[in-house]
Amino acid sequence: MAIDHIARVKELMPEILASDPSSTHAGTTPGSFASAPEIAAGRAGAKTYSSQDSPGIPKPSNKTAWDFMPTDWTLIEGFEDDYEKAEAWQRPQNYEPSTQLDSARCGIVTVEMQRVADREGHLTATQVRDEVAAGRMVIPANRNHLQHNLDPMAIGRASKTKVNANMGASPVSSGTDEEVEKLKWAERWGADTVMDLSTGGDLDACREAIIQNSTVPIGTVPIYSMIIGRRIEDLDEETILNTLRHQADQGVDYFTIHAGVLHEHLEYVKNRLIGIVSRGGSLLAKWMIHHSLQNPMYTLWEDICDVMRQHDVTFSIGDGLRPGGLADATDIAQLAELSTLGELTERAWRKGIQVMVEGPGHVPLDQIEFNMKVQRTLCHGAPFYVLGPLVTDVFPGYDHITSCIGATNAAWHGASMLCYVTPKEHLGLPKKDDVKQGCVAYKIAAHAADVALGIPGTRDWDDDLTRARAALNWQKHFDLSFDPDTARAYHDEDLDVDTDFCAMCGHDWCSVRISKEIQEFASGKSDDYQWQKAKVSAALSEEQQEILEKRGVLSPEELHRLASKTKKTMGAEEGKASCHSEVSDADKAQMLQIVELGSAD
Amino acid sequence: MAIDHIARVKELMPEILASDPSSTHAGTTPGSFASAPEIAAGRAGAKTYSSQDSPGIPKPSNKTAWDFMPTDWTLIEGFEDDYEKAEAWQRPQNYEPSTQLDSARCGIVTVEMQRVADREGHLTATQVRDEVAAGRMVIPANRNHLQHNLDPMAIGRASKTKVNANMGASPVSSGTDEEVEKLKWAERWGADTVMDLSTGGDLDACREAIIQNSTVPIGTVPIYSMIIGRRIEDLDEETILNTLRHQADQGVDYFTIHAGVLHEHLEYVKNRLIGIVSRGGSLLAKWMIHHSLQNPMYTLWEDICDVMRQHDVTFSIGDGLRPGGLADATDIAQLAELSTLGELTERAWRKGIQVMVEGPGHVPLDQIEFNMKVQRTLCHGAPFYVLGPLVTDVFPGYDHITSCIGATNAAWHGASMLCYVTPKEHLGLPKKDDVKQGCVAYKIAAHAADVALGIPGTRDWDDDLTRARAALNWQKHFDLSFDPDTARAYHDEDLDVDTDFCAMCGHDWCSVRISKEIQEFASGKSDDYQWQKAKVSAALSEEQQEILEKRGVLSPEELHRLASKTKKTMGAEEGKASCHSEVSDADKAQMLQIVELGSAD
Repeated sequence: MAIDHIARVKELMPEILASDPSSTHAGTTPGSFASAPEIAAGRAGAKTYSSQDSPGIPKPSNKTAWDFMPTDWTLIEGFEDDYEKAEAWQRPQNYEPSTQLDSARCGIVTVEMQRVADREGHLTATQVRDEVAAGRMVIPANRNHLQHNLDPMAIGRASKTKVNANMGASPVSSGTDEEVEKLKWAERWGADTVMDLSTGGDLDACREAIIQNSTVPIGTVPIYSMIIGRRIEDLDEETILNTLRHQADQGVDYFTIHAGVLHEHLEYVKNRLIGIVSRGGSLLAKWMIHHSLQNPMYTLWEDICDVMRQHDVTFSIGDGLRPGGLADATDIAQLAELSTLGELTERAWRKGIQVMVEGPGHVPLDQIEFNMKVQRTLCHGAPFYVLGPLVTDVFPGYDHITSCIGATNAAWHGASMLCYVTPKEHLGLPKKDDVKQGCVAYKIAAHAADVALGIPGTRDWDDDLTRARAALNWQKHFDLSFDPDTARAYHDEDLDVDTDFCAMCGHDWCSVRISKEIQEFASGKSDDYQWQKAKVSAALSEEQQEILEKRGVLSPEELHRLASKTKKTMGAEEGKASCHSEVSDADKAQMLQIVELGSAD
Repeated sequence: MAIDHIARVKELMPEILASDPSSTHAGTTPGSFASAPEIAAGRAGAKTYSSQDSPGIPKPSNKTAWDFMPTDWTLIEGFEDDYEKAEAWQRPQNYEPSTQLDSARCGIVTVEMQRVADREGHLTATQVRDEVAAGRMVIPANRNHLQHNLDPMAIGRASKTKVNANMGASPVSSGTDEEVEKLKWAERWGADTVMDLSTGGDLDACREAIIQNSTVPIGTVPIYSMIIGRRIEDLDEETILNTLRHQADQGVDYFTIHAGVLHEHLEYVKNRLIGIVSRGGSLLAKWMIHHSLQNPMYTLWEDICDVMRQHDVTFSIGDGLRPGGLADATDIAQLAELSTLGELTERAWRKGIQVMVEGPGHVPLDQIEFNMKVQRTLCHGAPFYVLGPLVTDVFPGYDHITSCIGATNAAWHGASMLCYVTPKEHLGLPKKDDVKQGCVAYKIAAHAADVALGIPGTRDWDDDLTRARAALNWQKHFDLSFDPDTARAYHDEDLDVDTDFCAMCGHDWCSVRISKEIQEFASGKSDDYQWQKAKVSAALSEEQQEILEKRGVLSPEELHRLASKTKKTMGAEEGKASCHSEVSDADKAQMLQIVELGSAD
């Protein structure tokens, strides 16, 4: 007796068709099982995207930046229950907004907020303003960098997931020109911000060059320059504030400052397998142990805020105690620092400074949701900017992969920006191609998370490419790809004809061709993706040649042929185009011959 | 007034220290928030590993293979409530076990089960037997392949996550020798099984060569050879059964058969963006539409079982209707097929055949848990063997990455084996290096999932490498890496001295060095990982040279130097070793000079 599997599926999962009984799509909706934290939904008018909370996960804070106003602002009587808006507050006499947060609190939509809304697509300028006012979004835009080529962007969970690329010379490797080249390369490969983490060469000149050449926000870790020509033990208040003023003047858009590593946390680091892996964190730990004093960045926080305020530099409060191995993940040291970052966030908001908070390094996959969501508990929704995390320690050389797995999950569970990791992590300094590999892996993570979260419009790209793929329109397939040169080069390596199969399966077994030929199926029949006849692909561009040279699969002769092919050369290579089986249509065989001998579009 | 962040953390998360109040480790335990499905826990005596169920996720089936016994076995009176064991059953007269499942049902621990237990480490042979008897584990071991070099292994959620590598020639590319080379290469890079998916060349000779050379189980998709010299429309019962007999005789360990694509499912494929992307699925769909008959694989299932039984070939029931784009994921067609695979699983178990079930291709990250867990509802715990899934469609050239993100999640949520995807997916046929890249990405996914699930012993490897890294013992760090040559080559590209920093940060900023030097920290002080002095690394091996050549970062001269270096050559390169800042110890500077001029171990 036949089982009705269709009926069983519909019965087993009734919610599936609740919205559209005639739909053939059973699927859970994007971001399904999602419950946006109540704090965000509805309040600022913008939907914050989130994965559903697993049982046992800590709940979000019920506070926002509106709960940490500057002490000289007054809540107007009557607004006690409705204070998360500009109209509820009395500002001090002669108040001048300086930062994006200031403006948002005044109800002002700045030029930068408008630009952000244009770029995000699914957010209005007012929603952007309200997200900034709530502290859930930052627009890192130093006024001095705005004088150059900075194109304003935002980081925050209501917006698309962002990616940061790190670069910078070390004393052992690289220099200013190479770093500017990496900057442009990172911009090309989709980095949304770039950090100059130089510890060697001419730090000042490199930083200036990067800021002046960059359309994306630039971040730095100022403590690195504080120890040039100086031992860490000799770091003092004057050096700290002067360095910050200098870099702020230069136009740095955000500073990573490790103010959350407190003296009292250090005993919880003692038994870790790999101690402190943050450069800034380890330097400040060393300072504190030497002086038996509290972290100067923590004690000077309000003075540092005053420096930040001048040009609107954003905080990226550093995770000096992030875990550097799975064994050290989610320990008291890490979480106590995160709690401190929450305190520092509150203090920064009281000074009107924009804040994002940094997060961990190496975390087993099953602990990522907890790691992300405990941050919204402790830091009141401030954007979370996470490095990876790596989900295993044992694959150096491939840490762009081990970490982008964690990063995709981290963004889905709440992180707003992902700091990339390259294949050189743990081994040496990233080169230009490592920058690209890191960017690609992280654009994958960011985009996949946006789709999972259901951010409007993000899956349109995937669907368009799927239509092109279904139609076997190779050119359109590659044009829509994130890296068209690589896709085209890999295809042409085996088969330099665009036709209704490829080298993976050959003609007879190509499921995409078969699906397209089945009249009843819509597959491959989208109007905008049709093509007329098979054609020889164009000669390889230089970039595509280089890609294939590095793969080392083709001989120099084969590479040369692809690079310089003409009809005549194609016709001579009988073996290459003999891709039809003995049961291929006479029509098909004829078509291939036409391709070989006839017109090449 | 200072906030006690340590106290706040302990209070906020009380369960953290429940097990050990003196622990500095807050962390959630591996596989935390995990609730192994009740069906598995306790019953067979082995713990099945699982992520915690999100709210709304379908519950597991409460049946196992013990509920689908051959109809000529009788349940002994009195065992109605305790029938999941050999003693509960009366076998037919003169019964001879043929498959691993048969033996397990008879209470027999076979040689292969013992070998599996040795390889798994955390499972006893009895537990292996019981997992096989319950249908939750398969040991794909064709008796004919056992005559050659097959080393028995198991696939099932109680065991470590496994990885399959696909290879095979197409009509357009490759041949037997190249495919055997890929096989050995895949074995080297950790593939646990290999599938020969050839559609071109001499299919028979290739398959024979692969089986005879392979220490891992070999899978095939027999329908491919069924259409050599034949149109799909002409496929008949005789061809199907003869082909299966022939391949079973050759020693194939598991068959992918797309018996779950039913005629009545096809209308649910109509509106998909990319129809049917499975070769076998599309061929059978074409057959059914042409003949207006039910899928012959489905109708002939019991006859096929009889063929499988002879040499103990395992089923891998194909996912012919898997989604080929995010837009098609989790639709009725896919789920109805999965329901059918459940029915086919039951029918195969009744014939004593081992079964695993195949799963989807392209699934948004947020739908993966649902996709994995609905399978345990429908297929009673049979091992789930999934391809990817890809979490975005728009990165062809990088689909080993887009899919290993999904695969890590899939394994954590229940999949037992992951079918790899290479950088050539959607574009052409994988080459040798693509096989390696696919294997590495999937070994990452499998290992990261094992750690997340808390499979005993799996994180020891990560912890050992972290200790070596913390001690700055580079040689041990690389020896413990999954790919030591790549790790060593990337390190030496910038700095060919093993010392207490690397080229990423240089001496003064190396956090790992600083952590190790802080007396109070245990970091880097593990006895087994200490080293005496910095040393020049050995000359590059040929493989390491090739890795750096392909990167294209170093000039031929620099490569030559690394490949052939001697003390004299090192001493001459003053610029290369000037990695100490102006504040480096005189001791350090001297040490480097000793390295340059002195002994090279």
